[in-house]
Amino acid sequence: MSLKRKKYTRKTGLPPGSLIYTGERKSEKVIIELIDYSESSYEVKSIENIEDCAVYKDKPSVTWINIEGIHDTSIIEKTGKIFGIHPLLLEDILNTNQRPKAEDFEDYLFFTLKMLHFDEAKKEIGFEQVSFILGQNYIISFQEGIAGDLFDSIRERLKNNKGTTRKKGADYLVYLLIDAVVDNYYQTIERLDATIEQIEEAVMTDKADHCVASIQKIKKDLIYLRKSIYPLREAISYILKGESKLIDHNTLKYFRDVYDHTIYIFENIETYRDILTGLLDVHLSSLSNRMNVVMKMLTIISTIFIPLTFIVGVYGMNFKFMPELDWPYSYPIIWGVMILISIIMVIYFRRKKWF
Amino acid sequence: MSLKRKKYTRKTGLPPGSLIYTGERKSEKVIIELIDYSESSYEVKSIENIEDCAVYKDKPSVTWINIEGIHDTSIIEKTGKIFGIHPLLLEDILNTNQRPKAEDFEDYLFFTLKMLHFDEAKKEIGFEQVSFILGQNYIISFQEGIAGDLFDSIRERLKNNKGTTRKKGADYLVYLLIDAVVDNYYQTIERLDATIEQIEEAVMTDKADHCVASIQKIKKDLIYLRKSIYPLREAISYILKGESKLIDHNTLKYFRDVYDHTIYIFENIETYRDILTGLLDVHLSSLSNRMNVVMKMLTIISTIFIPLTFIVGVYGMNFKFMPELDWPYSYPIIWGVMILISIIMVIYFRRKKWF
Amino acid sequence: MSLKRKKYTRKTGLPPGSLIYTGERKSEKVIIELIDYSESSYEVKSIENIEDCAVYKDKPSVTWINIEGIHDTSIIEKTGKIFGIHPLLLEDILNTNQRPKAEDFEDYLFFTLKMLHFDEAKKEIGFEQVSFILGQNYIISFQEGIAGDLFDSIRERLKNNKGTTRKKGADYLVYLLIDAVVDNYYQTIERLDATIEQIEEAVMTDKADHCVASIQKIKKDLIYLRKSIYPLREAISYILKGESKLIDHNTLKYFRDVYDHTIYIFENIETYRDILTGLLDVHLSSLSNRMNVVMKMLTIISTIFIPLTFIVGVYGMNFKFMPELDWPYSYPIIWGVMILISIIMVIYFRRKKWF
Amino acid sequence: MSLKRKKYTRKTGLPPGSLIYTGERKSEKVIIELIDYSESSYEVKSIENIEDCAVYKDKPSVTWINIEGIHDTSIIEKTGKIFGIHPLLLEDILNTNQRPKAEDFEDYLFFTLKMLHFDEAKKEIGFEQVSFILGQNYIISFQEGIAGDLFDSIRERLKNNKGTTRKKGADYLVYLLIDAVVDNYYQTIERLDATIEQIEEAVMTDKADHCVASIQKIKKDLIYLRKSIYPLREAISYILKGESKLIDHNTLKYFRDVYDHTIYIFENIETYRDILTGLLDVHLSSLSNRMNVVMKMLTIISTIFIPLTFIVGVYGMNFKFMPELDWPYSYPIIWGVMILISIIMVIYFRRKKWF
Amino acid sequence: MSLKRKKYTRKTGLPPGSLIYTGERKSEKVIIELIDYSESSYEVKSIENIEDCAVYKDKPSVTWINIEGIHDTSIIEKTGKIFGIHPLLLEDILNTNQRPKAEDFEDYLFFTLKMLHFDEAKKEIGFEQVSFILGQNYIISFQEGIAGDLFDSIRERLKNNKGTTRKKGADYLVYLLIDAVVDNYYQTIERLDATIEQIEEAVMTDKADHCVASIQKIKKDLIYLRKSIYPLREAISYILKGESKLIDHNTLKYFRDVYDHTIYIFENIETYRDILTGLLDVHLSSLSNRMNVVMKMLTIISTIFIPLTFIVGVYGMNFKFMPELDWPYSYPIIWGVMILISIIMVIYFRRKKWF
Repeated sequence: MSLKRKKYTRKTGLPPGSLIYTGERKSEKVIIELIDYSESSYEVKSIENIEDCAVYKDKPSVTWINIEGIHDTSIIEKTGKIFGIHPLLLEDILNTNQRPKAEDFEDYLFFTLKMLHFDEAKKEIGFEQVSFILGQNYIISFQEGIAGDLFDSIRERLKNNKGTTRKKGADYLVYLLIDAVVDNYYQTIERLDATIEQIEEAVMTDKADHCVASIQKIKKDLIYLRKSIYPLREAISYILKGESKLIDHNTLKYFRDVYDHTIYIFENIETYRDILTGLLDVHLSSLSNRMNVVMKMLTIISTIFIPLTFIVGVYGMNFKFMPELDWPYSYPIIWGVMILISIIMVIYFRRKKWF
Repeated sequence: MSLKRKKYTRKTGLPPGSLIYTGERKSEKVIIELIDYSESSYEVKSIENIEDCAVYKDKPSVTWINIEGIHDTSIIEKTGKIFGIHPLLLEDILNTNQRPKAEDFEDYLFFTLKMLHFDEAKKEIGFEQVSFILGQNYIISFQEGIAGDLFDSIRERLKNNKGTTRKKGADYLVYLLIDAVVDNYYQTIERLDATIEQIEEAVMTDKADHCVASIQKIKKDLIYLRKSIYPLREAISYILKGESKLIDHNTLKYFRDVYDHTIYIFENIETYRDILTGLLDVHLSSLSNRMNVVMKMLTIISTIFIPLTFIVGVYGMNFKFMPELDWPYSYPIIWGVMILISIIMVIYFRRKKWF
Repeated sequence: MSLKRKKYTRKTGLPPGSLIYTGERKSEKVIIELIDYSESSYEVKSIENIEDCAVYKDKPSVTWINIEGIHDTSIIEKTGKIFGIHPLLLEDILNTNQRPKAEDFEDYLFFTLKMLHFDEAKKEIGFEQVSFILGQNYIISFQEGIAGDLFDSIRERLKNNKGTTRKKGADYLVYLLIDAVVDNYYQTIERLDATIEQIEEAVMTDKADHCVASIQKIKKDLIYLRKSIYPLREAISYILKGESKLIDHNTLKYFRDVYDHTIYIFENIETYRDILTGLLDVHLSSLSNRMNVVMKMLTIISTIFIPLTFIVGVYGMNFKFMPELDWPYSYPIIWGVMILISIIMVIYFRRKKWF
Repeated sequence: MSLKRKKYTRKTGLPPGSLIYTGERKSEKVIIELIDYSESSYEVKSIENIEDCAVYKDKPSVTWINIEGIHDTSIIEKTGKIFGIHPLLLEDILNTNQRPKAEDFEDYLFFTLKMLHFDEAKKEIGFEQVSFILGQNYIISFQEGIAGDLFDSIRERLKNNKGTTRKKGADYLVYLLIDAVVDNYYQTIERLDATIEQIEEAVMTDKADHCVASIQKIKKDLIYLRKSIYPLREAISYILKGESKLIDHNTLKYFRDVYDHTIYIFENIETYRDILTGLLDVHLSSLSNRMNVVMKMLTIISTIFIPLTFIVGVYGMNFKFMPELDWPYSYPIIWGVMILISIIMVIYFRRKKWF
Repeated sequence: MSLKRKKYTRKTGLPPGSLIYTGERKSEKVIIELIDYSESSYEVKSIENIEDCAVYKDKPSVTWINIEGIHDTSIIEKTGKIFGIHPLLLEDILNTNQRPKAEDFEDYLFFTLKMLHFDEAKKEIGFEQVSFILGQNYIISFQEGIAGDLFDSIRERLKNNKGTTRKKGADYLVYLLIDAVVDNYYQTIERLDATIEQIEEAVMTDKADHCVASIQKIKKDLIYLRKSIYPLREAISYILKGESKLIDHNTLKYFRDVYDHTIYIFENIETYRDILTGLLDVHLSSLSNRMNVVMKMLTIISTIFIPLTFIVGVYGMNFKFMPELDWPYSYPIIWGVMILISIIMVIYFRRKKWF
């Protein structure tokens, strides 16, 4: 089943704040990874028991807890208790239909967005929800648990102390994570761009045969992309207002950069929609044109032969008294007449530009 | 008759504030249920006479009076008198064409919205208007009186003192009621989603025969849903401004959550509209394509036989002097010629990609 | 002529404030009616001479002067002088193409809107402009003079001292008048709704034959309705800001109610437009479908007979040497062959789902 | 060439403020007319040399300098020097592609808009740019120089001291001039309205044959009108903010009136666009309907005769052994059979409602 | 490959601020030109080594450093170091997919936009990104390095001390550069305008054969133009707020002028889109009309001959007993009957207006 069509099955009748996972189970086991770093130190751990993270909460070093797999609600609940997170927010993390948003809870900032996966086999875009909780010195990230994420290069950079990342705070790390997700949108857009170029090529050289469905498929992809990127833009714009004390003034410049990227992606999606609509028009018009040319040609052939058939029918009649039948040159004359008629009709149709 | 098409028959010529019920009578008897609770107490009563509720108005415990059936305007009028409600507001409660809205009357808050019922038999969505009046320690809810509502799980929770509901005030209860209604929109959306998926499947595999009407029907449902959810969003947004002293600051967080849900539903409705428009395009284009293929094929058959018919017509003529008629091999030769012509035409049409 | 298409003939070249009536003359004589009331008194007079109204200007009782027929500009001019009204405003009253608006002139409030008349015979909606001037203790209303208005029930209520109307001021009366006009929009909407339902019924059961023009007609009605209701909404919203000292705070609640009605009507107009667009799509698609079915059927009949006609043509040829002609069973065999061909073709077409 | 399609040829490479006329030369000679008036005095002069106007700059009486023809840039330049006008503004006056706007330069107010000319012969709307500079006691108006303008009645009124015009200041005169231009839009709208009514009549009675192009032409006119009126509305709205000390508070009321007119015109343009779109739909659908009826009828005729032709073909075969040929009543029987077949087919087609 | 379709290949996985050029390499060598001027001095240099520019940074004269070719990231990096430019900004300069924007970094102002190149051979519009950094006394401009730019006339003016340019500051120079780019849009618009006029001519005289693709091409050009001009308008509007201390109050007037130009261009793009949509409608409708006329004519010819063919078929039957065959005048009579039938059919079709 497509990842797009998630069921909305919400826990109707349950009290708000009830933690129930609404998505599909994407992995067997929940994997928890903890990275703790400062300018001078770096530590990476695989966590079995979420309670082990509690000690990191108030450490001055930056701690990144990455939870892959959110189907085990007990882990989410415990995390919530340890870090003092509002139950409604936990519900949002578990609800895989959550629209991208940022929300400021004074002590922490909540951010949720969609990460794209491209399934090469099915040529389909998959959506995985990622949520971030940014506290004073920690980030907790929640992924649905599809194997692989977009953060390996960030882990690499932290480990090898490349650039200035380890000198900066948790707010800069959250920027890096969001930036990695948004960068991935660029690649998806590029992939769509290539497909659109192919379709355009096919349509313009009149070689497209089944492109209505392809165009429709891309249009649908664009609709879903737009549904992800539009609220993301709003969410980043919310952060840009700079009201959260958790995000440093200097880091805001970087968020401004991500914001520009989301606008760029959004504008491209709109552009592609316009182009596809145009392509569909050209395609349908050229299809109907080709059809018309065929039908006209065939009809012209019929129209030329029908009067001739009538003429030969006339001299197939068995009347006793038909003087032409006895004349010696009737047969060649009738051939001449018929050829003449054909020529006149062809010339007439040509003049009228009927073919 | 569809529940959607309610008559607007307003009481033209009557003074404003005249209480006249504008909907259809949905039930025989008006049922009034009273639930009174505090953290430690719980009482449920079936009320015969609305005046019996007066004593609950100023009790510190939370009182929820649920009135099912609003066709008996005298009950509404008495309720208005007991709780000191503005006549225009009573008129709004009775007007089943009221658009969803929230209005702050200082002493109480008025909230009206549409509850969805799905009629499995007719595959139709029905709309029932629900209004809430939130006072200091009481809620009065008014339903049109269609059997069954969405609040049973809330009653259950109150009765069994599950969760924290009984510890909280009337404002939290009104949130729970609104949340239950909005949750129900999710299910309707899910049902539509399933139908759209079926239509999509049918269209894409070219098996859809009568889906124009189905698409149109869903589009209409979406129009009506949007008409219900859009003003609802506005109404909740009005509450979120937090100007009413009747709604506690902590409860606002929950309303914010419902607000997010309404946006999500609204965006899905827009998405479905776009998808349906696309599906219609694909369907119509594939219909016309299939038609064209058939017509072309049939026309090609005619076009091949018409010249042949002409040829056999020629040798059906009765001229005295037609040398070919007497030649011994004319008949097989003419067959050869005709077969040749057919083959040439087929090859020609193929080359031109006419079939 | 339709009331909709009023001529714009403005008095080009005349100075601003020149009083020239731009509409058609709707009645012979201008009728002026004066109603003066307070809680305890009630007086109704037919006025011959507008100067007679001057004494009522400063009376503490509420005076309603209703002028039916604005083609006699001298009356308008005199009214302007008596009540000290700005010439541009008088011009607006006379310009029957004025868009609905509210304007605050400190000493008085100006309000103009369109009153609907449904011409049962021609099935056409007519528009009549009504303007109100609300002063401290008086209202002057100007109608174009089409026989009958929507205010009879208000007159009745004033006369019989029903409700609280006579206890309230001139601002409440102006609300009542506007409310009566807006209520009338509901009826028009209801009438359109019924027509749309009929068309929908016809389209869905494929019995609609000429509904393109009907749909177009309703669409045009909706366009004109929207053009009346949209600025009306703006005008009432202008009043709701509550800046005019002429409208009491308590009366604003009632205007808020009318405002809700205009939004409701406006949203319905939009809904109908969407539905009609959808209906047109379904109708055109079903029309073209029916057409296609017919053409396909007819073409199939031709296609089956054309090869058969060719075959019988073959044995109509007059060649000397055609062995089949002399065989004894040729005739029944050829019948068999032809029946076989027909059956094969029918089966083939069926398999291909061509009919 | 249409007046609409002005070339954009801008003086690329020239410094800003370079005075180059971008339009076509509309007249040979530049005509400068000066009218100077106060309540008691009135003077009109034809000016040869723009320097002669300098003395009027600081006179307390109101001076209106009307320059017809802006192709002689030296005159514009001199005017600029005399009245101290910013070079960019002079550039705007000369750029006939300037969009309508108002700009406040403290010492003077700049206003530019499009004046419409209807070319009766070509049935085309022409646009002429008019700019006004409103100083303390003077107005300078610049026209492209097309013969005739819309201000004759204003000149008349000034000369004969009709109304209060001469008592008022230069700001009132500028209002009069703008009002005259906007009034002229009404006439254009009325002319379009009449044409649309004709097309509608033709479409509804199915007598329209080439109305696609006519509809397209009007649509284009509406596009250009909208392009003129939309920024004009903005410009007047800018003046209405009342920030310029050059426009008296009392005159603003008049500008408010013009503003209402521009909204009215704008709304009508939108309405016409909607109506034309609808008409096009009706027209195309009725065209295709008529076409379908014809094709169906013709196809039915063919379909009836093709089987009959086959039957007579059968008995035209020359088989030796065809028993029917020798029966005495074969011929009348075959006629009977064929008539029967025709009747059955006609009945069948009728039942199926194929014609 | 079209310049439009730039790859988005972003350096996924690299830290933000990593300088990687994302466009195609447009030239071999990076050319750096330095112009330093004041009212009295003028100096132009070709720079080999970007470090040589450092001394100009704090000189009171205005310095313009123009860098053509941004594929050598080391040069960009060094420039950044010398002038103290934020790494994210350098990244934006190198990202050729950057949308036009203005950004204020207190010490300098960043401005990036698209310069248009028209490729006469391919009839294609190319986009080149130009970025400006405006410091206190210097401007650095970055071009992608396509041969030729639009600034030659500005260089000329600086060199020859034409106009007041050399008297003004760096802010005025940046205005001149932006103005030159925007002026170039006018020319592109004019070129499109001419093409649209040609297509319109062809469509209206029914001589357009392949204009669907042409219309689509222009539509696509307009989409890309709009994508460049719309954010440009926003960027200039950002400058117009006048919050940057780097831009003098007097220079803002000039930016206001450029702003007006961008609006004008934007409105024209919208107008062209509307016109093209209309043209497409007219074209498709006239195409289908022509097709219909042909098909109808051909079908009418067939329809006339098919009954005649049937008649001659009747008398081709070989029944022994067909009395008509022996009558002496059968043959001429049958001719008469057939001619009569043809005439009746032609008249009938004419009456019905079928041709």
